[in-house]
Amino acid sequence: MTEPAAVKAALKNQAVETPSWAYGNSGTRFKVFAQAGVPRTPQEKLEDAAKVHEFTGAAPTVALHIPWDKVDDYAALAEFAQDHGVKLGTVNSNTFQDDDYKLGSVCHPDAAVRRKALDHLFECVDIMDATGSRDLKLWFADGTNYPGQDDVRERQDRLAEALAAVYERLGDDQRLLLEYKFFEPAFYTTDVPDWGTAYAHCLKLGPRAQVVVDTGHHAPGTNIEFIVATLLREGRLGAFDFNSRFYADDDLMVGAADPFQLFRIMYEVIRGGGLTSDVAFMLDQCHNIEAKIPAIIRSVMNVQEATAKALLVDREALAVAQRSGDVLEANAVLMDAYNTDVRPLLAEVREELGLDGDPIAAYRRSGWAERITAERVGGQQAGWGA
Amino acid sequence: MTEPAAVKAALKNQAVETPSWAYGNSGTRFKVFAQAGVPRTPQEKLEDAAKVHEFTGAAPTVALHIPWDKVDDYAALAEFAQDHGVKLGTVNSNTFQDDDYKLGSVCHPDAAVRRKALDHLFECVDIMDATGSRDLKLWFADGTNYPGQDDVRERQDRLAEALAAVYERLGDDQRLLLEYKFFEPAFYTTDVPDWGTAYAHCLKLGPRAQVVVDTGHHAPGTNIEFIVATLLREGRLGAFDFNSRFYADDDLMVGAADPFQLFRIMYEVIRGGGLTSDVAFMLDQCHNIEAKIPAIIRSVMNVQEATAKALLVDREALAVAQRSGDVLEANAVLMDAYNTDVRPLLAEVREELGLDGDPIAAYRRSGWAERITAERVGGQQAGWGA
Amino acid sequence: MTEPAAVKAALKNQAVETPSWAYGNSGTRFKVFAQAGVPRTPQEKLEDAAKVHEFTGAAPTVALHIPWDKVDDYAALAEFAQDHGVKLGTVNSNTFQDDDYKLGSVCHPDAAVRRKALDHLFECVDIMDATGSRDLKLWFADGTNYPGQDDVRERQDRLAEALAAVYERLGDDQRLLLEYKFFEPAFYTTDVPDWGTAYAHCLKLGPRAQVVVDTGHHAPGTNIEFIVATLLREGRLGAFDFNSRFYADDDLMVGAADPFQLFRIMYEVIRGGGLTSDVAFMLDQCHNIEAKIPAIIRSVMNVQEATAKALLVDREALAVAQRSGDVLEANAVLMDAYNTDVRPLLAEVREELGLDGDPIAAYRRSGWAERITAERVGGQQAGWGA
Amino acid sequence: MTEPAAVKAALKNQAVETPSWAYGNSGTRFKVFAQAGVPRTPQEKLEDAAKVHEFTGAAPTVALHIPWDKVDDYAALAEFAQDHGVKLGTVNSNTFQDDDYKLGSVCHPDAAVRRKALDHLFECVDIMDATGSRDLKLWFADGTNYPGQDDVRERQDRLAEALAAVYERLGDDQRLLLEYKFFEPAFYTTDVPDWGTAYAHCLKLGPRAQVVVDTGHHAPGTNIEFIVATLLREGRLGAFDFNSRFYADDDLMVGAADPFQLFRIMYEVIRGGGLTSDVAFMLDQCHNIEAKIPAIIRSVMNVQEATAKALLVDREALAVAQRSGDVLEANAVLMDAYNTDVRPLLAEVREELGLDGDPIAAYRRSGWAERITAERVGGQQAGWGA
Repeated sequence: MTEPAAVKAALKNQAVETPSWAYGNSGTRFKVFAQAGVPRTPQEKLEDAAKVHEFTGAAPTVALHIPWDKVDDYAALAEFAQDHGVKLGTVNSNTFQDDDYKLGSVCHPDAAVRRKALDHLFECVDIMDATGSRDLKLWFADGTNYPGQDDVRERQDRLAEALAAVYERLGDDQRLLLEYKFFEPAFYTTDVPDWGTAYAHCLKLGPRAQVVVDTGHHAPGTNIEFIVATLLREGRLGAFDFNSRFYADDDLMVGAADPFQLFRIMYEVIRGGGLTSDVAFMLDQCHNIEAKIPAIIRSVMNVQEATAKALLVDREALAVAQRSGDVLEANAVLMDAYNTDVRPLLAEVREELGLDGDPIAAYRRSGWAERITAERVGGQQAGWGA
Repeated sequence: MTEPAAVKAALKNQAVETPSWAYGNSGTRFKVFAQAGVPRTPQEKLEDAAKVHEFTGAAPTVALHIPWDKVDDYAALAEFAQDHGVKLGTVNSNTFQDDDYKLGSVCHPDAAVRRKALDHLFECVDIMDATGSRDLKLWFADGTNYPGQDDVRERQDRLAEALAAVYERLGDDQRLLLEYKFFEPAFYTTDVPDWGTAYAHCLKLGPRAQVVVDTGHHAPGTNIEFIVATLLREGRLGAFDFNSRFYADDDLMVGAADPFQLFRIMYEVIRGGGLTSDVAFMLDQCHNIEAKIPAIIRSVMNVQEATAKALLVDREALAVAQRSGDVLEANAVLMDAYNTDVRPLLAEVREELGLDGDPIAAYRRSGWAERITAERVGGQQAGWGA
Repeated sequence: MTEPAAVKAALKNQAVETPSWAYGNSGTRFKVFAQAGVPRTPQEKLEDAAKVHEFTGAAPTVALHIPWDKVDDYAALAEFAQDHGVKLGTVNSNTFQDDDYKLGSVCHPDAAVRRKALDHLFECVDIMDATGSRDLKLWFADGTNYPGQDDVRERQDRLAEALAAVYERLGDDQRLLLEYKFFEPAFYTTDVPDWGTAYAHCLKLGPRAQVVVDTGHHAPGTNIEFIVATLLREGRLGAFDFNSRFYADDDLMVGAADPFQLFRIMYEVIRGGGLTSDVAFMLDQCHNIEAKIPAIIRSVMNVQEATAKALLVDREALAVAQRSGDVLEANAVLMDAYNTDVRPLLAEVREELGLDGDPIAAYRRSGWAERITAERVGGQQAGWGA
Repeated sequence: MTEPAAVKAALKNQAVETPSWAYGNSGTRFKVFAQAGVPRTPQEKLEDAAKVHEFTGAAPTVALHIPWDKVDDYAALAEFAQDHGVKLGTVNSNTFQDDDYKLGSVCHPDAAVRRKALDHLFECVDIMDATGSRDLKLWFADGTNYPGQDDVRERQDRLAEALAAVYERLGDDQRLLLEYKFFEPAFYTTDVPDWGTAYAHCLKLGPRAQVVVDTGHHAPGTNIEFIVATLLREGRLGAFDFNSRFYADDDLMVGAADPFQLFRIMYEVIRGGGLTSDVAFMLDQCHNIEAKIPAIIRSVMNVQEATAKALLVDREALAVAQRSGDVLEANAVLMDAYNTDVRPLLAEVREELGLDGDPIAAYRRSGWAERITAERVGGQQAGWGA
């Protein structure tokens, strides 16, 4: 078993990036339910994100979404973040909320639309230069709804062309993170539907092109930890978008639907060296009906708990059982770690960092929820689905 | 084989109800793409629906959605419809687009919200009285997103109570149609997730409570035609909501994703006597990226083609093969009908009804699309996802 | 929270029936891997089952499978069981392993085959009379592989007829348990594919006809605990066939694939009164590659752990959170119980019953595995897939 | 639209390889139903395969499965085939039906088992040398059933090592075809679960390593034609294993479950140049309950019909509609081809080749079924699942 001190040290180093858009309203195609006190500006989102970091000590960076988080002065925004104890993180592009993108963005049959989308991606790189962000995360809503609607293969050619142009534009310390998604909003084909497609494109681009695994973007029954292990083996796992789902891309709190799966994923991350490499751990969630800040705190905690359990796996005993073909014993070694209640350990870790052992309770006591509900009245949030 | 004359007669009698909301804008949680010329009023929706009937001869009624189609004078609306050659059909309730319904409507933990939802359902019955509609179609977005969020069983009790109250309110010639849905917008539980749940509730209500099969509301791999056959055998198939899907509830044009499945469904409908009974055939679709009126015309045609093929099955030869256990021959008899090109037959049927054999071409020539694009400027549609 | 004493008492009363066939070899269509020491006779299966009960204290009965467990003298078999500390339990019929059943058994198009199948079911009732078994569990492999192969609706009529004949034959203290299965071995239709179909048949039969929930027999994404809650609400949950699956009907050890789901199921069982009613808790698993007896011990323990966690849910706190619409708190109350490490509690329970706290270790020390490997040489097991 | 003469020419050139094992008995884990007249020797399988070619003119080669088709003299077997009008085709390895392979073959934790498996693969290459076969098709049943059972990543290393050794052994005109499979017989992980994994391995091996798409080996909802288009774009589509499925790997007759999907796949094959390249089109099916030879004839015909429809797509009209963003028209162009009844065209093609227009009827009239039923009595087939 990993030494307790080493487990604690690993947990203290773990960082989960929270997404600015998760602090705003979200919903389904049926309804976006407005919540009181949600941020109306990028600055207010950063304030909320800072609260998550204040109580967890594990969420030091905030992902931006362009254009939702567009500001005139990114240096000032970065300073604002710094002043609140967090940093700006990954820049996320958006090529799906403009009427021009009805039939796609970088894969659109019309070159003018593709150009517009590409210009937006270039703008994102400019913003990265201004914010000092390392990662550009690309998710394309591109795809088709009906067989025959467009030429599946030409769309790949268009995609490859756009990716190459963006990759070319990146600085030496910047990365292109390509996200795949099984379905939605396109229903018949998705232009980057699986890890294989993302991987094949990244291979052609170069070493700073990496794949993003969004835990909600797979077909039913897919073994996600296998993909994680494979991408780590190939040196192409760039980041996670964490969330959880029962059926489709439900974007529920990570660990809420299948905590055992999250544990298995974190085990493969650790086993493959992903915890101490450049893999970025991000949340990508929608808190449609639950309070947003505590939901994000809970999500960070869920990642921590899965990580702690994965760190506790007795890897030597596991290797012995595996090599001897003792199926039950190997499984038992893994389950022993999973069945451990790691909450006391994590409370200790937090206390050693000078934090409250129970971040949710501490947040509730802080009065922040009441304050933003009272103060953030009027105005309008720029957000997704809003 | 069914006599050609009988096949034609059956096709001439077939009616597909189109939904008022399909004429308006729709989309996904990511974006609703606005289309030019979409209706802004219930009357304009009826005008468009009338065009679908004018060119297909098979869409004589229009389903209403309350409150999207609320008007002051329903008798006048019915007369407006009549003047345009169509009739008002099923009334659809909406208990999901109000902030109060964040945690449910008739299953909500708060009795005040349940009362509000029930009042809406009563209002729908009042509207049915005014329009002369036979059917009230109930789909509840109720459910939960997280394990533990609410008591699954108490929600059933609340649902049963509301359904009983509505059923009680119905007139002797009115029906309650209960729709089930596997998931979405709730992600963990749905309060009427499957036909079994809808059926069990209907059984307790009485004979005028019937189940609605929405072809997009099932788990992957579900054999929908089996459910159709079973509900017909039980005397509880009230209606269809037709659409098609590749993965979730995609609401694509019926027959677009799996035309063979639609054929099998129509075969079971015919075999179970559903074509000549009170089963209502409705569309429930979203034309997010394609032109709406021609998409609805195409959908009506797809239902007709599947029906024509199903009518052509040589049921005597099929029975002989089935009884003798000749698997390949029985399958071949079914496939022989499916592989037949029924478009010439349907063109004949239309021409015998005084229609153009090619409804899409006729619609395109009619100039309606250009006219509404030019005239319907300004104003705002009331619609779903809008 | 439930009082600790009450939790322990409930756990001490819990009984899980183990299936005689799980002690024998099993496999996939690709290969049945033989294991050393597997039973060759019903008596040897009972010996193994007795070991599971000896070390867990929670597996007092053994389900029989006819004809695999056919003997000349069932009274003697019952006495043999008694002498080894266990009892005979549910009788399982088998109408799938005879060449005559290629196109079905009770749903077969040929009346002679249906008659043969029905005679087998009657024989099973006779055996129940001899063994004193309460429950007859019926699972039919019936279905079709190709559209058109047989008449879906007539097959339901044939099924209803057979079920009625069997129900009629039962004694007043005997029950008919009808199991549904989504797919396999039939691929296009299954004659009892879902709980709704099983429920509808049971309703017509009478109160002693009850539904069996096999946890591996559902479409992907199905919420099984919802079905459990619904069947308990309807008074029609007769039994569980426990196992777990990642994709299809994998028949892995219960709790191995999704322990959180098993916990949620046990929570609904407890909440619906199923723990103290006549619901039968059975395993139905295949230990294709792992040692069978310890796998079954582990499975019993997994059920116990899930039950213990479900018993620990603070139902008062849960109700408060649910009624106030506090989504996060309600979920947290449930997760608090799930995240508890209940293994020490269960060790205590076992020790209070005079057992070793660690049944797997105790079994390993017992030498039983070595003994049967040495002694059970030659002969042939009668089993499934063998 | 493609010129009719060109369509006919393409159809006349199309070849579908039939698998020797499909002529033998097969089944599910529940039961293998024996059929009268099935082959008992490789020679008898070739005789049956020759009949399929005799009546379809489109099945000129037969895939072998080692060890099921092991003979002392492969040159003699090739000559036997030639004398019957067919040729030996792809060699399929089998590393799943030996007790040693319980925990895997080339991925097994034990080096001795891996060595045994590799020796078998080398033997297969030797057989290819003797038969003159071009392709070695590798499908590995390797995987794990339980989390923790083995090290996922080390298994990839072992796999890579074995593949490299086999690739090295191949002659310059020989290919390694790597097949992926989503699940079964392993239930937790499969060592080559998706096209991405197969593709990544092939990339490292070299240009003669190609991916096999088995149409039944995907998660629910997977867009197979997208994978086909992508692999063709990457130059890595080596072969198809055709069959169809409703839920899992059902191995039903190709085109039986979703003929529209098969059409879409063939469209992407043609669009990507796969019809005239080195892509091998093979069947891999199990005719568990239907007569085998006519089922295989029907399967070849289903591939031909899908191909004919795909050839009829008016690609110019399609491109115009696609480029102009006319979703409905583009879909309509595709559907127009799909809705065409191509059976008369295929009858013409056959007649022009001197064959009967209706291969099934011709086979039935031939008396072959009666002859083999009478003659093939006694003996035992070597086959899968038997």
